[in-house]
Amino acid sequence: MTVAAPARRTRVPRWDPLTVGVDIGGTKILAGVVDSHGSVVEVQRRPTTGHDVALVEDTIVDLVQGFQQQYDVAAVGVGAAGFVDASRSTVMFSPHLAWRDEPLRDRLTARMSIPVVVDNDANTTALGESRFGAGVGHRFVLCITLGTGIGGAIVLDGRVYRGANGMAGEFGHMQVVPDGHRCPCGNRGCWEQYASGNALEREARELVVARSPMAHALRELCGDDPDQLSGPQVTAAAQAGDPISVELIADVGRWLGTGVAGLVAAFDPSAVIIGGGVSDAGELLLAPTRDSMVRHLVGRGYRAEPPVVPAVLGPQAGFIGAADMARSAARRSRRADRRRDRRGRWFGVRDEL
Amino acid sequence: MTVAAPARRTRVPRWDPLTVGVDIGGTKILAGVVDSHGSVVEVQRRPTTGHDVALVEDTIVDLVQGFQQQYDVAAVGVGAAGFVDASRSTVMFSPHLAWRDEPLRDRLTARMSIPVVVDNDANTTALGESRFGAGVGHRFVLCITLGTGIGGAIVLDGRVYRGANGMAGEFGHMQVVPDGHRCPCGNRGCWEQYASGNALEREARELVVARSPMAHALRELCGDDPDQLSGPQVTAAAQAGDPISVELIADVGRWLGTGVAGLVAAFDPSAVIIGGGVSDAGELLLAPTRDSMVRHLVGRGYRAEPPVVPAVLGPQAGFIGAADMARSAARRSRRADRRRDRRGRWFGVRDEL
Repeated sequence: MTVAAPARRTRVPRWDPLTVGVDIGGTKILAGVVDSHGSVVEVQRRPTTGHDVALVEDTIVDLVQGFQQQYDVAAVGVGAAGFVDASRSTVMFSPHLAWRDEPLRDRLTARMSIPVVVDNDANTTALGESRFGAGVGHRFVLCITLGTGIGGAIVLDGRVYRGANGMAGEFGHMQVVPDGHRCPCGNRGCWEQYASGNALEREARELVVARSPMAHALRELCGDDPDQLSGPQVTAAAQAGDPISVELIADVGRWLGTGVAGLVAAFDPSAVIIGGGVSDAGELLLAPTRDSMVRHLVGRGYRAEPPVVPAVLGPQAGFIGAADMARSAARRSRRADRRRDRRGRWFGVRDEL
Repeated sequence: MTVAAPARRTRVPRWDPLTVGVDIGGTKILAGVVDSHGSVVEVQRRPTTGHDVALVEDTIVDLVQGFQQQYDVAAVGVGAAGFVDASRSTVMFSPHLAWRDEPLRDRLTARMSIPVVVDNDANTTALGESRFGAGVGHRFVLCITLGTGIGGAIVLDGRVYRGANGMAGEFGHMQVVPDGHRCPCGNRGCWEQYASGNALEREARELVVARSPMAHALRELCGDDPDQLSGPQVTAAAQAGDPISVELIADVGRWLGTGVAGLVAAFDPSAVIIGGGVSDAGELLLAPTRDSMVRHLVGRGYRAEPPVVPAVLGPQAGFIGAADMARSAARRSRRADRRRDRRGRWFGVRDEL
């Protein structure tokens, strides 16, 4: 009898496919072909044609089929604004797209016969930034997106942490002021009522309404009509040196930093990434954020403070992350197929797709 | 040439050793022999003899050697009140034990020639409760220990999540009231200033100081000397039906619930476990906690709310969790040894011990 040498694992070069990522926003759909280093091979942009989910599906299918004529696409990842269920197949509720219970994954898979994953756009964006952007080299990353509200996500060891119901990362609705400003979520004093684009606008408009002489630059910008004043205008005014606009953005930064200090106490992350429209203010926002974080951080002086850094991938982060999720899913699917082939039965990790 | 059949993994019964867990508290050291189901085979209790780390070490060595005469002990896990470094070898700072930079693991290993792990007692307690107590069946568990302050820990898939510096879970120092009560950590408005044993005592004492007629039961309990009034007395009075004591505990519960709602928004846990001395109040505390959590939870009505449950293992949770950490470490160490034996070189996971 011949005794076989003990089996050794040999290193096979990793299967390294191209995947497509799609980011469905309220106004535009951004899609790209992405490789495993997060490099964008090609990008396409289309308007979000109304709120009809069928039209959005048509657009996605059309984009993917266009890419498939040029590239060998292994899977598609879709990030959508809204709540996505834990199995990542259904957009349960999307306020911006006016969707409810849309089984996006199954419908796209049926039309394209290619694996599809669906996730919340905050998660796809966070994954893109963590793995290929500002989070490179950090194990435990908190991503905070300052838009009209606060979008958040947690990326641990290169994977999005989703929690029990797929709803982790809703940092914006942690209460920071008891009985504070009313929030559309129904509560009062939510963090995003103090640190967000909406908060910046509200505060700026109050100064215009009060006809504050301090706010003459802001009043000029909106022709004394507070409803015309927007967050980006305040940011532009601050960057041009208007002192009250600088102060308004610093105020958002201070609220942001206080909340970040709390999240750092709870999560002890390796890095905190700040993205979204409000972060266009750059250091006008981030310097007060860091000051406030350090001032409110437990154990300060005895601990390393995590870097608080701006997102670097811009609007592409969403589809880059979605493409990366699709790549993981395609790999799992392939492993499952291979196991089934060899042993003749099904081990079933495919339902993770 | 004979072709060997493809190697298959065969299921070997898992190595299933007994381990010892040690919980070093400010007043007592609790140690036990624990099996892999979390069952306590034997338990011993000793006083914490002063703050001299050498005396504590003597006690631990003595306890372990006692156990070793009867049982085959594979490893020792130690939970200590204080900050433990990320490699889990050194107690960096322990206010209760008055230790600084004590390399507890190395010193114990040197004296006992058996693998030793050291961790923060909040982590060991949380692990014990999550794996063998109130958290059984739940993947993502938040543990909140209400003592003088708030101790916290995060257990994901049966493992303690420690974060970048081993400092995750400091929930008690998230700010919940801007410019609120001063906290010994140096900040203001920390959660543990509102939801803790200290908070309960402070509020009860204020009523005694104010000679509130509402507080006649409390005034009797302490002989009109507010400094003599303790949290457990308030709890006992509440359980005996004193309305103001019931209200004081409900107040702590409401603050607890508001903060839990924020943590649920951020983590989306499968369960929240409430332990510690204040939780002896049972439903007098937990019913208002749940009410307040639901009222402040984002997406309520659209999401499953996690159960908020009392800890069930009591003071044994700490050493049961420490023993479980030791078991994982012993298994890793054994795997590393076996790999080294077979291939003749060292793969070095032992430094995780």
